[in-house]
Amino acid sequence: MSTAWTARYALRTKGITSSRIRELLKVTQRPGMISFAGGLPAPDVFPVQRFQEACHKVLTENASSALQYSATEGYEPLRQMIASNMDRYGIKAKAENVLMTSGSQQALDLIGKLFINAGDKVLVEAPTYLGALQAFNIYGAEYESVLSDDDGLRTDLLEEPLRAGPKFMYVLPNFQNPAGTTLSEGRRHELVLLADKYGIPIVEDDPYGQLRYEGEHLPPLVMLDRANLRRDNGYSIGNVIYLSTFSKTLAPGLRLGWIVAPPEVISKLAQLKQGADLHTSTFNQFVAYEVACDGYLDKHVKLIRKVYSERRDVMLQALKEFFPPTVTWTHPKGGLFLWVTLPAGLDIEAVFQSALEQNVAFVPGNSFYANDPEEGSRHMRLNFSNATPEQIREGIRRLSEAVKRLLKGKALRSEQPLGV
Amino acid sequence: MSTAWTARYALRTKGITSSRIRELLKVTQRPGMISFAGGLPAPDVFPVQRFQEACHKVLTENASSALQYSATEGYEPLRQMIASNMDRYGIKAKAENVLMTSGSQQALDLIGKLFINAGDKVLVEAPTYLGALQAFNIYGAEYESVLSDDDGLRTDLLEEPLRAGPKFMYVLPNFQNPAGTTLSEGRRHELVLLADKYGIPIVEDDPYGQLRYEGEHLPPLVMLDRANLRRDNGYSIGNVIYLSTFSKTLAPGLRLGWIVAPPEVISKLAQLKQGADLHTSTFNQFVAYEVACDGYLDKHVKLIRKVYSERRDVMLQALKEFFPPTVTWTHPKGGLFLWVTLPAGLDIEAVFQSALEQNVAFVPGNSFYANDPEEGSRHMRLNFSNATPEQIREGIRRLSEAVKRLLKGKALRSEQPLGV
Repeated sequence: MSTAWTARYALRTKGITSSRIRELLKVTQRPGMISFAGGLPAPDVFPVQRFQEACHKVLTENASSALQYSATEGYEPLRQMIASNMDRYGIKAKAENVLMTSGSQQALDLIGKLFINAGDKVLVEAPTYLGALQAFNIYGAEYESVLSDDDGLRTDLLEEPLRAGPKFMYVLPNFQNPAGTTLSEGRRHELVLLADKYGIPIVEDDPYGQLRYEGEHLPPLVMLDRANLRRDNGYSIGNVIYLSTFSKTLAPGLRLGWIVAPPEVISKLAQLKQGADLHTSTFNQFVAYEVACDGYLDKHVKLIRKVYSERRDVMLQALKEFFPPTVTWTHPKGGLFLWVTLPAGLDIEAVFQSALEQNVAFVPGNSFYANDPEEGSRHMRLNFSNATPEQIREGIRRLSEAVKRLLKGKALRSEQPLGV
Repeated sequence: MSTAWTARYALRTKGITSSRIRELLKVTQRPGMISFAGGLPAPDVFPVQRFQEACHKVLTENASSALQYSATEGYEPLRQMIASNMDRYGIKAKAENVLMTSGSQQALDLIGKLFINAGDKVLVEAPTYLGALQAFNIYGAEYESVLSDDDGLRTDLLEEPLRAGPKFMYVLPNFQNPAGTTLSEGRRHELVLLADKYGIPIVEDDPYGQLRYEGEHLPPLVMLDRANLRRDNGYSIGNVIYLSTFSKTLAPGLRLGWIVAPPEVISKLAQLKQGADLHTSTFNQFVAYEVACDGYLDKHVKLIRKVYSERRDVMLQALKEFFPPTVTWTHPKGGLFLWVTLPAGLDIEAVFQSALEQNVAFVPGNSFYANDPEEGSRHMRLNFSNATPEQIREGIRRLSEAVKRLLKGKALRSEQPLGV
């Protein structure tokens, strides 16, 4: 079936296919399914009463502005609040350093639009956030990817890909999606020094930074950036663009993220944003401001930390209890995900299908590799924020059954040739 | 002042500059300014009480879903409602024909992303909507432009630019932005026939279609599309992509627009949207549904028609009263704008500056021409939806003073040489 349109797609969209995760989320709607597949916050921690009050207040006091068109850069008091919050990292940002975006995903799209020409290299972690690959792919990005381990991106492997002259590096230092690992403090310093040495700027994506369940907060790259530290009267020159969001601390349904960057970069991004959606929902920005203000956001984040760290612990405990010792996993100090490594030789697609038969879902690791999906074929990304502790325990039990069944099959298959 | 970033902008962004209107809106914030510059709805007609009730209901009954991530395509009941509303145009659309977008502006961006390669031609009206040019420019669009008159786009001039093989046509048949003109019924048929003859698909942008103040509703192009009419069991093949929005009927601060298109085009656009912002605000979609449902939207639109048609009449009356007969203007049958033509030889920049001195603002016509801004240099776009009737009358008086002053100056200047 074709129309006048289907013969007319632009070259750049040749390779677009629906993301694995998107297709997956449809399967996970099945009744009885326990899903570790999405990256969904727990609805139980949405501050619903506070939202009620905020909506009521905004519509009572400010409806004429809140329902109207507004500035592309965002709602000034909200930008100011976000700039002030950067203070906790020692960054003296101002409202002019902040662009509100329609979720962090739009930040990635705008960055791709502003910086990537077809064929440009972007340096990413292996594995990395699937949504960033989707956003950059459309502009024709190619990738240099650098392996990570339990301490995050391996800075000892960084010089060669930096020499290849990527347009920028894209990194998630805290509780990485999908691996759940955190870049160690030593490596943060090394990374920023190497970036400076080779003149390669950094996009630091930090959606989960506030959701730390153990250990001390580590300085973000934007704070270690020497170009920034050279100035003490404001954040006006820097090699790091910093991204964050309210999706994991307030509610993803608002679609509110932001970019912190030097003003001249913010100004270019705002011009692109104007063509992309004029501005982010005025109403949602007003409401988020009312919800977050007067220290409520920090208080609420403490509750989220408590709930999610309990769920993480339940998942870690269940993994230990149900999985055979040949299966390993990361120990995330925060965030929403952990990363399981299966014994070599298992077919991840078979594991995935077997899991679905057990009514449990995860995302197969191969979706998270920019260059070689095969590298992910022994991995599963598990989300621990969305399911309840009871579901998590039961889901991990089911998942272990699915894996054990295949391990057994595999053992059988590899014995058969011996028997023939 | 430069950073590691500023040397790295992509080629496609070379020409981006902040839109004239965006810069303008900053000036119009000045106290005492009467602005006809923006395209802002009247805040007095925002259905605030209904929004209060809708927010309360959504957060009471549905907070877990409304604040969560959701499907890229949009909230199913809302898509269903929009599909059903196409029925009034004789289009049997289904939810699968509808993609919710973050305002109509995002629809334009996604269409540009999906269809435009650098150097591709797009056929547009002269003048046309500035925001569409901004969205398409970023993908390297070039333009064939076709003049319009009081009956809209001049279909008698259409064949040659169609032969140039544009990727698609972009047209605003109802109460066009900026000209305020409406494509006559005869020309609608001609346009669709010619598009069919040359195999050129159509993007029909219809933000104002519901806001008609006189005359009968004319059939949209999507309804006249023969490819569509060939099928009677659904809207599944068609050459027209239809765009609309809640920005002019409910509130622009929600950022809710939509695309109606064949399912296979919707599916591609949804894949691009996923990379662009994952999905449009779940909360706003739930709230808009609750506001619009049970026939409220149609009832509310009647109120808007009453208020805006009064404002249009006040503006038309004031233009007649205050302007000299050498100045002419369009008589819009709906929408938000009218288009003034000044006597030849006036410098539009001087008129604009003179108007600002009188504390009244408009958008100079040259922003609305894809190929030759000079064509707009005798025109002013005036918005009549945002200012109150009293402000409209006073603003037109001030504007006439500004114009008269320059006409006098021009007369003086052209007399001086005679005197020398």
